[in-house]
Amino acid sequence: MTPQHHLPADIERTSFHIITEELEMMGLTPPPEHEAVVKRVIHTTADFDYARNLRFTPCAVEQAVKALHAGAVIVTDTNMALAGITKPGLAKLGGTACCYMADPEVAAAAKEAGTTRAVAAMKKAAQEHPGAILAVGNAPTALLTIAEQIESGLRPALVIGVPVGFVNVVESKERLFAVCEKHGVPAIVAMGRKGGSNVAAAICNALIYSAAEMLDPSARGWK
Amino acid sequence: MTPQHHLPADIERTSFHIITEELEMMGLTPPPEHEAVVKRVIHTTADFDYARNLRFTPCAVEQAVKALHAGAVIVTDTNMALAGITKPGLAKLGGTACCYMADPEVAAAAKEAGTTRAVAAMKKAAQEHPGAILAVGNAPTALLTIAEQIESGLRPALVIGVPVGFVNVVESKERLFAVCEKHGVPAIVAMGRKGGSNVAAAICNALIYSAAEMLDPSARGWK
Repeated sequence: MTPQHHLPADIERTSFHIITEELEMMGLTPPPEHEAVVKRVIHTTADFDYARNLRFTPCAVEQAVKALHAGAVIVTDTNMALAGITKPGLAKLGGTACCYMADPEVAAAAKEAGTTRAVAAMKKAAQEHPGAILAVGNAPTALLTIAEQIESGLRPALVIGVPVGFVNVVESKERLFAVCEKHGVPAIVAMGRKGGSNVAAAICNALIYSAAEMLDPSARGWK
Repeated sequence: MTPQHHLPADIERTSFHIITEELEMMGLTPPPEHEAVVKRVIHTTADFDYARNLRFTPCAVEQAVKALHAGAVIVTDTNMALAGITKPGLAKLGGTACCYMADPEVAAAAKEAGTTRAVAAMKKAAQEHPGAILAVGNAPTALLTIAEQIESGLRPALVIGVPVGFVNVVESKERLFAVCEKHGVPAIVAMGRKGGSNVAAAICNALIYSAAEMLDPSARGWK
């Protein structure tokens, strides 16, 4: 049988239906407040492990949606995550997204401090946008920098901690989550090795769609 | 124990060492010609399923490296995949990368033909760069368009077929692989549901690093 061309919106609806059914069969249906995020990450990766890996501080989604309604800036740790965030959706909420990895000032600061660009970029993010949504899909060092900054008083609207990898990644996510819990900072973290820029963007998009849907129930939903 | 800040190059070396060891323990060590691609995809996703999912037409990597040495253009189906491709690495080989998804001509052509932008973007790619490396990490419709074009005579240097998803994705990848095999077009395809823009970019980068290493053995390797 030749596969048919379908419309993207129909494909998305059918995909979420399949994800919902398979999660149910596996006994992994997420609680309603996490549903949009968990399902969109699975939609992005086709990896049901995320139903087990994703951890949320209490009311993290609610607080992130509130921040998006207030026009929060999203700062990502890679241009790839930035490219994956829905710009029309974010613009409707009056929000913006940015990434400092290619910033010449950041490169200079990293060189001077003998650190990584990821660390210098997150320090700049903390300075420029102290109440931002920080989305980290790549660099565990960025996550550790955020943890340090939170201990020194930074209060981001949300930290999305989903770097992927084999060295320092598991530990950096555990550390970040513990620090966020301790200081009451909302966090969504993919525990374990898995994650990525695509996962970071998917979580941002789930939150953006949820925020838009709340303002206009006829807007594109995630179900 | 507090996780330490490490240098990115050290982290990458250690990560590939861990991946090599775990693949060996699982009895999934890839053949030497596929090693760079398989390991970099696992490095990008922390998902060892790709050791089983990735399929290559005979000599696909060798032919892709040859095309990169000849300055082949890489065309991606998303700006996210484009953002993930190493630009300095590609520039050293004299190559470039592009994506037509945000092209106003493509949007107009899609509207006129009542099709998706992904389809119109791949048609434009086939016209503008008939000998390109086509990297599809998102849209199964883009993959089906490439299959049709190959049946009509298009001969891309390589097709990377790694869209992710639940509807039409598995079938579109099987169809593309069969068409590539039949017509002797090099292809690297992630069979099954998994894939993504990050996987498409990772495969491009593995090929770029391999091509660079062949010209200059002191260049950044993948091991």
